[in-house]
Amino acid sequence: MLDALFKPKSVAIIGASSNPLSIGHIVQKNLLDHDFKGPIYPINPKAVSIMSFRTYASITDVPDEVDLVNISIKNTLVPAVLEECGKKGVKFAIVHTAGFKETGEEGRRLEERIVAIAHAHGLRIFGPNSQGIQNSDPAVSVYANFTFVPMTPGNISIVAQSGGVGETLKLHLHKIGKGIRMYASFGNEADVSLNEIIDYYGQDEKTRVIMVHIETLRDPAGFLEVAGRVAPHKPILALKTGRTSEGAVAVASHTGSLMEQNTLTDVIFKKSGVLRFHSQEEMVNAAIAFSSQPVPKGDRAVIVTNTGGPAIIAVDECVSAGLKLAKLSDTTKERLKKLVFQEAIVSNPVDVVATAGPDQYGGTVAALLEDANIDSLLLVFVTAPFVDCEGIARRLGELGRTATKPIVCQVITIEKWAEVIRLIRESGIPVYDYAESAARVLGTMTQYGKFLLREAPSHVRFKVEKPMAEKIFERNKGKKGFLRQDEVFQILESYGIRGVKTLRVEREDDLEKAAGKIGFPLVLKVDSEEIIHKTEAGGVALNLKNKAELLAAFAKMTKTFAPQKPGYVLQAYAEAGQEMIVGLKGNKGLAPTMMFGLGGVFVETLRDVQFRLTPLSEQDVLEMIRSIKTYRLLEGVRGEGPRDIEALAEMMMRLSQLGTDIPWIDELDLNPVLVFEKGKGATVVDARIKAAL
Amino acid sequence: MLDALFKPKSVAIIGASSNPLSIGHIVQKNLLDHDFKGPIYPINPKAVSIMSFRTYASITDVPDEVDLVNISIKNTLVPAVLEECGKKGVKFAIVHTAGFKETGEEGRRLEERIVAIAHAHGLRIFGPNSQGIQNSDPAVSVYANFTFVPMTPGNISIVAQSGGVGETLKLHLHKIGKGIRMYASFGNEADVSLNEIIDYYGQDEKTRVIMVHIETLRDPAGFLEVAGRVAPHKPILALKTGRTSEGAVAVASHTGSLMEQNTLTDVIFKKSGVLRFHSQEEMVNAAIAFSSQPVPKGDRAVIVTNTGGPAIIAVDECVSAGLKLAKLSDTTKERLKKLVFQEAIVSNPVDVVATAGPDQYGGTVAALLEDANIDSLLLVFVTAPFVDCEGIARRLGELGRTATKPIVCQVITIEKWAEVIRLIRESGIPVYDYAESAARVLGTMTQYGKFLLREAPSHVRFKVEKPMAEKIFERNKGKKGFLRQDEVFQILESYGIRGVKTLRVEREDDLEKAAGKIGFPLVLKVDSEEIIHKTEAGGVALNLKNKAELLAAFAKMTKTFAPQKPGYVLQAYAEAGQEMIVGLKGNKGLAPTMMFGLGGVFVETLRDVQFRLTPLSEQDVLEMIRSIKTYRLLEGVRGEGPRDIEALAEMMMRLSQLGTDIPWIDELDLNPVLVFEKGKGATVVDARIKAAL
Repeated sequence: MLDALFKPKSVAIIGASSNPLSIGHIVQKNLLDHDFKGPIYPINPKAVSIMSFRTYASITDVPDEVDLVNISIKNTLVPAVLEECGKKGVKFAIVHTAGFKETGEEGRRLEERIVAIAHAHGLRIFGPNSQGIQNSDPAVSVYANFTFVPMTPGNISIVAQSGGVGETLKLHLHKIGKGIRMYASFGNEADVSLNEIIDYYGQDEKTRVIMVHIETLRDPAGFLEVAGRVAPHKPILALKTGRTSEGAVAVASHTGSLMEQNTLTDVIFKKSGVLRFHSQEEMVNAAIAFSSQPVPKGDRAVIVTNTGGPAIIAVDECVSAGLKLAKLSDTTKERLKKLVFQEAIVSNPVDVVATAGPDQYGGTVAALLEDANIDSLLLVFVTAPFVDCEGIARRLGELGRTATKPIVCQVITIEKWAEVIRLIRESGIPVYDYAESAARVLGTMTQYGKFLLREAPSHVRFKVEKPMAEKIFERNKGKKGFLRQDEVFQILESYGIRGVKTLRVEREDDLEKAAGKIGFPLVLKVDSEEIIHKTEAGGVALNLKNKAELLAAFAKMTKTFAPQKPGYVLQAYAEAGQEMIVGLKGNKGLAPTMMFGLGGVFVETLRDVQFRLTPLSEQDVLEMIRSIKTYRLLEGVRGEGPRDIEALAEMMMRLSQLGTDIPWIDELDLNPVLVFEKGKGATVVDARIKAAL
Repeated sequence: MLDALFKPKSVAIIGASSNPLSIGHIVQKNLLDHDFKGPIYPINPKAVSIMSFRTYASITDVPDEVDLVNISIKNTLVPAVLEECGKKGVKFAIVHTAGFKETGEEGRRLEERIVAIAHAHGLRIFGPNSQGIQNSDPAVSVYANFTFVPMTPGNISIVAQSGGVGETLKLHLHKIGKGIRMYASFGNEADVSLNEIIDYYGQDEKTRVIMVHIETLRDPAGFLEVAGRVAPHKPILALKTGRTSEGAVAVASHTGSLMEQNTLTDVIFKKSGVLRFHSQEEMVNAAIAFSSQPVPKGDRAVIVTNTGGPAIIAVDECVSAGLKLAKLSDTTKERLKKLVFQEAIVSNPVDVVATAGPDQYGGTVAALLEDANIDSLLLVFVTAPFVDCEGIARRLGELGRTATKPIVCQVITIEKWAEVIRLIRESGIPVYDYAESAARVLGTMTQYGKFLLREAPSHVRFKVEKPMAEKIFERNKGKKGFLRQDEVFQILESYGIRGVKTLRVEREDDLEKAAGKIGFPLVLKVDSEEIIHKTEAGGVALNLKNKAELLAAFAKMTKTFAPQKPGYVLQAYAEAGQEMIVGLKGNKGLAPTMMFGLGGVFVETLRDVQFRLTPLSEQDVLEMIRSIKTYRLLEGVRGEGPRDIEALAEMMMRLSQLGTDIPWIDELDLNPVLVFEKGKGATVVDARIKAAL
């Protein structure tokens, strides 16, 4: 529980100072300015008082209980001070001081030491190298942070890995008069973690929206668990930065794993229902709407405007954001036609024209709120100088207060009509500068609404021969590189995944027997972990029609690969089908990620692939299949019939089961999987598995 | 010349009124409030004075010359009033009044009538159904518009088809204290046109940036001509709305042609160097930077920050916007290391850390401005409470005033440091709320910089047999539908475009002779404009190896298509190559648009295509080829050699020449074009042409 961190009864400041440029001073002033509800104890061995507060030479001199300390002294002095805090029974220490893990090996050791000291006393550390925390709850009103954006109560809680990003988010909420609930920027995350904070926000009744900024997910499994629990109850809006390889380098030095982290973050967000943003502004805009508007029940939006052009922009953006333009019911159309001026356009957008007054504009919105064909409303409102604009705003405000559908708004106006914006915002309807912003917000809200209303996932458990697959993996214990081809196909078979018939051959003598079992035409392939690009190396002979061709191909191949001493496999020659790729990538501490996409040469050129975290339900795999850009190839184009999507989906679910059953898969690629026409199934032609055992 | 419109010496208001909610009143007040430098003549037959101005019963009663009138009387009264204006010698009439073309047939006739009346007198009409114009030039200071955003002088000129969008653009410039130069929202565009206004802005010395909002390009050829002339001298920033089919419907009712208009707008913008935006906010942000910052000479950006997280966002966005992270020179690194604090990171981003003062932050920017490896700078600046933030702002301001590289900035701060923002903005460095915005602006400026520095296009003129192609087209005069296959291949041949050998056959008797000329294996195809999907209909027989197979195929086909009485063609059977599509689409009054992309089934599924307006230079076609997503298929993947891109490029240039030489092409599709390995050329396998003659 983080109560003593976010709701401390008392705070001590270690590093308190009269110097207004010091962090200790700024934190004390922030606590004071925001009227912290408990006592503040400045700790300073040299001063008698700071800001008229009696000081204490050491935390141990404080006569009362202390829940929370803010530490901003030199890094090397931190261990001793924490030792004292521990003895005193302090519950949480916010360590602002930098010079720990982020500076290298020596700092890392110092960081480990302070955590060890703290934990020996049951004291917990927030940081080090951290900004601090805030809680606007009037019963606490704690601003234990050295930043400058003023705090007012609200229902949005923020946790940001970067203090600069956190400050930017707070700032833009503040600019439009929006308060926050809690705030935390946790720095090095040596002890109190991102996941604990999200969990805490999730349990906080007064938090309605959670905003998260992440650079590195330190505990992906923990995040998945917490976010998966919280997201169905309150929206989690997240920004993961360092998404380009250059950005990842700026976050840390190990690019490869960070690019993988970007995909991993994506699949974890998708799995848990976290809403991912790619810009701070869009995240702030969405948070504002979520904090006061109901979540839409569907994707049918209506646009109301009193000026044409911006409404067209709203249409473009709504459609781009995945919304549909609602069709007004006949009843609504009749109501509107009686209400609006003759020049008005009763369609979607509804253009009430610039001369519309409160009755026309307000009445239109009232009617649309009652139309069952409509899930959300986007209003464009220019304060035309010849109508009662405040009257319109008042009517919209009244409607906004009781609406059960989300309303978002663009207002085009200047200072002179500030009251218009105030009246609308006061009702909870968010006001944006641009129609584009309003439309994107509706898109995000609708996406969350879909997540809330999704049907319960149907996780099919297939009857499989798990022990056989396990046996093959165990046989390969300690092996680096890829498993033998015949073993790979045996593993697939044990999970009911159809592959072309594949037999291993070592010598020329094996050929005839194996060929007899499979039947011509045949394919001969080299099988060696040293030879990755088999085709290019001359390690694949296709469509061998008889014994003579087979022997010739084998003779040629054994000559080519004499140095590597590889094995070989014989395979049935597969008929043509749509080439797809399906794969798994192991994740430490988590189930593997499944990859699905268009196969063949397009894997590298188009990267038309989807990723999801296993285990996958039937809905999940169907969504993956439908989400690739070239899905129409599977539906059937140019007179060709549809492909066997059901068989493909089943193969993916079986593979998901394999991936979650067997924790030793590092990499698994089925490439290509041939998907035949509907009813004829799908089969794996080439496959490889790398185990981590 | 539009001088009398944008620089009127006198303005009369027809429809002047004491009613503060009337347009006449609002326009008069706007003129007064902005201190119009000439006389204002209110015209009203009933009032003696309005706002203490003596009124005139009719424009003909005004004793002095009148350059411009603003008309806001009832639509049916407009013709008579324009007749009087004409007699009076008025030069321009802004018609605010609605109820013309936009309302239907009757309105359209009224609109034609007022234009005829005006032109008979040499009077020009701005509108009708228009907002008006503004010119902030202190020598004129005319606000002949009924909107409300106050006007201050600046160097950005705006022309907006939608008044609501125009007002939004003005509003957000105004909000950050940025003035404008001229403004126009032209409504129905019955006379004075978008293109004339852009041309006028282009010639105006004090206009440095032009912002354009378009819903429908009425005269694409005129726009291309004007924009192509202006864009190399001053940036034209444009927003074309109605880009989704739903948005297009909201603009007008004929979807198909408007979706085509979206592509046409794109190719015209590309050809002329117009910068296209998809959001008002991004266009406003870019305009602000262009208005005061130099255009970058290259794509190497550096990021300077005093807080880590937002700089990572800047990196992500810069890279997404096509920028490269500059590598600091060794000299710069040495300079910086002497300057900044020990914790600072001298890399890109340069993190001067939050404790950096004016010497550290300012000195760093000064050094980077001198580094020849750097083309542009993005600064992230949080007003850390423990440093001299105004001092930093002052230093940045000094540097900004003389910098020859663009600088953009994100400042994270609150009201208390308003002076910081003021000082930076005053120097011309734009300040944005978010790092993302700043990065995107740099991306756009860099794109424009590339356009300015592009090499002169090399337009190759091939020696072709134009008369032969013309003859075939003329022979097909009046024919609807597609040309005969053999004629299509003859046209291609006359322009040196290689196709598989194609001969027409009518009867069985023709087969042997034709087959002899081409040689087996052969392809037999039906050739009829009624049969579009030949393959699906059974109209293509591939790989006919001998006379018997050919005769059998012909017999079957003639039976299948007996009702249609089609023709047939025999073609050489082409070897395998990469399937691409190349096409032309005719544009009325303009050269045709060329389409290029991945062929085969991917044309419909992936739409991996590029469009450009002909005539195309060598650079243009190479850029088209390199811009498709699957370009790597042409470069060679998985051990396959590269394809003959040179031959493909030449084919496209020859086709461009055909398209511009022969104005009768409505549609031309080469699908597929087979591109063979490097050195082996490319050939057209199937082609069709629809003429508009």
